[in-house]
Amino acid sequence: VVSSVFDAGVEHEQVVFCSDPTSGLRAIIAIYSTALGPSLGGTRFRAYPNESAALADALALSKAMAYKAACAGLDLGGGKAVIIGDPAEVSSEALLRAYGRFVASLGGRYITACDVGTFPADMDVVARETRWVVGRSPAHGGSGDSGVLTAYGVFEGMRACAARLWGDPSLAGRTVAVSGVGKVGSRLVGHLIEDGASVLATDVDPAALRRLRERYPEVTVVDDPAALPGMPADVFSPCALGGALTDSVVGRLRARVVCGGANNQLAHPGIDKLLTEAGILYAPDFVVNAGGLIQVADEIEGYHPERAKAAAARIFRTTQAVFELADAEGQTPAAAAATLAERRIAGIGRLRRILLP
Amino acid sequence: VVSSVFDAGVEHEQVVFCSDPTSGLRAIIAIYSTALGPSLGGTRFRAYPNESAALADALALSKAMAYKAACAGLDLGGGKAVIIGDPAEVSSEALLRAYGRFVASLGGRYITACDVGTFPADMDVVARETRWVVGRSPAHGGSGDSGVLTAYGVFEGMRACAARLWGDPSLAGRTVAVSGVGKVGSRLVGHLIEDGASVLATDVDPAALRRLRERYPEVTVVDDPAALPGMPADVFSPCALGGALTDSVVGRLRARVVCGGANNQLAHPGIDKLLTEAGILYAPDFVVNAGGLIQVADEIEGYHPERAKAAAARIFRTTQAVFELADAEGQTPAAAAATLAERRIAGIGRLRRILLP
Repeated sequence: VVSSVFDAGVEHEQVVFCSDPTSGLRAIIAIYSTALGPSLGGTRFRAYPNESAALADALALSKAMAYKAACAGLDLGGGKAVIIGDPAEVSSEALLRAYGRFVASLGGRYITACDVGTFPADMDVVARETRWVVGRSPAHGGSGDSGVLTAYGVFEGMRACAARLWGDPSLAGRTVAVSGVGKVGSRLVGHLIEDGASVLATDVDPAALRRLRERYPEVTVVDDPAALPGMPADVFSPCALGGALTDSVVGRLRARVVCGGANNQLAHPGIDKLLTEAGILYAPDFVVNAGGLIQVADEIEGYHPERAKAAAARIFRTTQAVFELADAEGQTPAAAAATLAERRIAGIGRLRRILLP
Repeated sequence: VVSSVFDAGVEHEQVVFCSDPTSGLRAIIAIYSTALGPSLGGTRFRAYPNESAALADALALSKAMAYKAACAGLDLGGGKAVIIGDPAEVSSEALLRAYGRFVASLGGRYITACDVGTFPADMDVVARETRWVVGRSPAHGGSGDSGVLTAYGVFEGMRACAARLWGDPSLAGRTVAVSGVGKVGSRLVGHLIEDGASVLATDVDPAALRRLRERYPEVTVVDDPAALPGMPADVFSPCALGGALTDSVVGRLRARVVCGGANNQLAHPGIDKLLTEAGILYAPDFVVNAGGLIQVADEIEGYHPERAKAAAARIFRTTQAVFELADAEGQTPAAAAATLAERRIAGIGRLRRILLP
């Protein structure tokens, strides 16, 4: 039960409920901030149990997008949309195009993309109604699977962790435990092996592990995902679902670094302190996994793979900057990353005061 | 408590929650339909007890605006906005301009105007951020007090009632009981006296009655508003708050016609049947009080008083058309007016299928 949209989204700029009964569309577009630019964020298409759950997801995810874009140095605010329903049952050309018209109704204040339950082919349908869409199929100028630069950015973030702890960004000779080898984790494994690291890997999906074994026979496959955090490694890399870093996992960790591609890795807000107290360097998730956002954001100007890759490579420097700020202000890295985001939103957003002719 | 925005506004196209914590703005813009054109409707600025009450008001009022605009033959959909708070306490330049930016964010899909708690001077402030504002002050091209054409339109609607019942649109020699002599009622009294009618009038505000007595000494002033419905008259004209037509009032009515400027005159949906059964001709409120909407809508093209007055005069013919449809389909006039609105929304909205080059 939603007691108040305003109270639930007290920091949000705008929350837009969009309805088209004929096609069955019920969508909520949440705009956290447009201080840095249009609010970009994917469309999550899911059978939410109720509207409150859908709203809560849109509000939390749009805020996370604002912080991710701000830290990544993008000229983008934070937004996210949810469509209520099981896409397998309710998705249709009419529903997606009705949704596209509502995205268009905001005139570019919100730019949509893929998320759980939506795919480039869906974005191509949405794009028949609005130009404010990225994450399109390559045939339509899209950048393809955003796991490519997400994995690359996580690798760059991990190199920044290595440089800080061991004085050298190389992961050669280090052991990295990768939890989840889907689109992001499997590509991260590739970067790690190329760099000379040893890799332990696990996944809840046996097929994903089988594919990994075939591609990288040198990887040590761990069949029980719950066992991975306790195994000896230098780096633990959560690349599966959110909430991987629970009190129990942190208690068992033997790695000195946590750096992975998953969203919302901290199971609760106190976990970052626990990691710091345990002497574990945590690379904030939304800082190191911004490569996917960087990739799709590049489509706005017309996708240019080298330009996008160069932007994702800057995650190395951003991760360093987060650690430096954490040192300077006595914050955890997660808190420092939030501070960095908030300062950029305030400091760059402020520049619109300077009227342009 | 709002259990679901979508369920509450199941027929609505879009509901937009807008927040600017620094200025204290919390506004809800409800767009019922844009099938006929931009959704025009005023901004109600009120200390709602909670967000649910504000949402319910925005939803109900935006639907009513859609029906009013459709029956009036305007190229406008239906929308309405509410700002939560006591304007005397919280209104400010910053709040009104933040609101203006959110009106602008919809790019003309919603056009705002005055309503309870907002005034032309406020619309001039809103207009510093967006061009999608009418109801502005005359110095800024506004049409001034919209009570002028509201009263004129009600008078034309009443003439259509007279033509139907007595074969002659003139109200000369008829007695009209006007309940509420504010901006609309007092001007209606002027039209009636000029046409040769006898007028009984009441108001809860003694000052309004005093002003009326000074201006029109020939009016019979009734000090007790509750007594007016039971007094002998040909026409009863509710021109004050909504819900005037209760079961009790209808039971006491001695008039053969009800035609007034108030919004939402029917206290509940069954009242129109009760009126028909009592042999009372009811001129649907949103048909005959559309003159104010017609007046402010004329500002969109640049206010032209004669053009607006000619459009308001068409309420005579529209009221006749409602009665004809009621006859043809065996509906009450209120139901017939809703049918007329729905048919125009569907029939004219459909024309957008014809692609224009």
